[in-house]
Amino acid sequence: MSIRKPKKLLNDPHNVPEEQLEGLIAASGGDMQKVEGFCATVRRDIPDNQVIVLIGGGSGHEPMFAGYVGKGLADASALGEIFTSPSPDIIIAAVQAADRGKGVLFVYGNYAGDNMNFDIAAELLEEEGIPSRTIRVTDDIAIEKKSDRRGVAGDMMVLKIAGAAASQMKDLDEVHRLAVKANDNTRSMGVALSACSLPLNDGFNFELADDELELGMGIHGEQGVRRQKMVTADEIVTEIVERLCADLPFKAGDRVSLLINNLGGSTVTELLIANRKAHQLLNEHGIIIHDTLVGSFCTAQEMSGYSITLMKLDDELLPLYDAPCHSFAWRK
Amino acid sequence: MSIRKPKKLLNDPHNVPEEQLEGLIAASGGDMQKVEGFCATVRRDIPDNQVIVLIGGGSGHEPMFAGYVGKGLADASALGEIFTSPSPDIIIAAVQAADRGKGVLFVYGNYAGDNMNFDIAAELLEEEGIPSRTIRVTDDIAIEKKSDRRGVAGDMMVLKIAGAAASQMKDLDEVHRLAVKANDNTRSMGVALSACSLPLNDGFNFELADDELELGMGIHGEQGVRRQKMVTADEIVTEIVERLCADLPFKAGDRVSLLINNLGGSTVTELLIANRKAHQLLNEHGIIIHDTLVGSFCTAQEMSGYSITLMKLDDELLPLYDAPCHSFAWRK
Repeated sequence: MSIRKPKKLLNDPHNVPEEQLEGLIAASGGDMQKVEGFCATVRRDIPDNQVIVLIGGGSGHEPMFAGYVGKGLADASALGEIFTSPSPDIIIAAVQAADRGKGVLFVYGNYAGDNMNFDIAAELLEEEGIPSRTIRVTDDIAIEKKSDRRGVAGDMMVLKIAGAAASQMKDLDEVHRLAVKANDNTRSMGVALSACSLPLNDGFNFELADDELELGMGIHGEQGVRRQKMVTADEIVTEIVERLCADLPFKAGDRVSLLINNLGGSTVTELLIANRKAHQLLNEHGIIIHDTLVGSFCTAQEMSGYSITLMKLDDELLPLYDAPCHSFAWRK
Repeated sequence: MSIRKPKKLLNDPHNVPEEQLEGLIAASGGDMQKVEGFCATVRRDIPDNQVIVLIGGGSGHEPMFAGYVGKGLADASALGEIFTSPSPDIIIAAVQAADRGKGVLFVYGNYAGDNMNFDIAAELLEEEGIPSRTIRVTDDIAIEKKSDRRGVAGDMMVLKIAGAAASQMKDLDEVHRLAVKANDNTRSMGVALSACSLPLNDGFNFELADDELELGMGIHGEQGVRRQKMVTADEIVTEIVERLCADLPFKAGDRVSLLINNLGGSTVTELLIANRKAHQLLNEHGIIIHDTLVGSFCTAQEMSGYSITLMKLDDELLPLYDAPCHSFAWRK
């Protein structure tokens, strides 16, 4: 069993959400600005009469969520404390700062706390005359029942489609319809080699033995489908890709975007070795890899491991996926 | 003292350099292709009569070096085993595959093994009639004497200028002159919280106590300037930025590119918190931050920690820095 202490370069651990957000805004080169008094940001230069796309959730998954605020992606973000849903007042403040009179689409992962807080915010905004629609991302196939699935790295895939649709000045119902379709077409699964630690806690949120991994672990350390002895990269990638392909299913001739997402502590070397095998497997299936993303997109602090995401791009989604975007975390 | 074992998702550890490169080529979306039989890549579609820019060094620093092969950056890369210089035959094979009749600029970090192997390759290429020039990047101010300094994340800054100059069809002497200037204008320093492990070894290359960090550690674990008790992020970032500023020196009115580079195991959260403080300090100095990069650009496997790089952009370097580029690791 690993015996080690979390070790990070931080300041006051209470200030992590605010400080990381300040660092992100500084890095964004003017793509976004802070909503004063709240852990929230809005994109600069949102066009008039555009539907607003807001992404949100707990801090600690950097660059998710605020790193996706920018042209062609999110117009606003609302962040909670580490691994904690943003409260309704933060969500409302972000919407008020971004609103252009055409309503807002909420994009977030399907977690009880987020569901509750975004629903409360939606009700209060409706009283103000700001209509909203919601897409709860459910890409994590570690849970069998689709409606119970968590949202993990697939959030960014759903956001990409929604953000592109909003940029094309589609109305709220249409942006929502496309986001639902994007979510329906997206599947993810992860593997973790180690736990993660939260700045306000002394230890790790669980332990994995030196010779064990957990398949399907969530991005807050939620239970996966199985703990097992360590295997090779090719073995675990094969199991994940085969599970993803069987779930949708993805089949020969389908075009997909492939995302190898670092949960935090994996080396880029490991991500690339995973990508090599994922390409081999998808090629064998006759699945066309339209785009490949490899890096830290939706993390779980220093958790070692990665997730693999596939989004099927049909003729309607493909041009939205290919539309340009500009944010800290994703540029096309 | 931390007691833990390295834990990574790999296949045969002997195959890591080849497999990561295959994964990278798969992720590059056609930006590059392999040089058959060698751990080397060349960019597709190198224009005729262009000076070739080749970047190289040991594997294990992913996405450095091959991740920078692409338009406006490197035309070729040559990789050695993990943390080991590429042998002359790899370098020569990469040059032969990329050569467009106008010579080659070698860009690599100043390490004894790289210096020797690239010099041998240069001699052999000269016999073949392929002229070369060399820039040894020396950005790491952890060593006092400039000519003895190591090349770390600053490699990518020097490469950016050289690649842009080559793309503008400048001749070899001019590309070299600009690369020398870029190196003269670039300074880096790192901080490490933990060691890293190599796939073929059982343990870590050293240990750091749970309450210690090392300032100025190199990207292979080379000794830094000081081991000390852990401090806050703001304290260590302040020391690094002040040392960087004093070294060039960078002063009020200077325009810089700022790079916060993950050595591997730091969270994106920590990188952003470091970026926040770096921006504050540079703003206080009156230094103009022209561009900010935050992420994993030059890593040391799972080493926790980060380096900070500043490159001064004068009127000649600025347009070269701003020129578009397209590679796995850097797109502008």
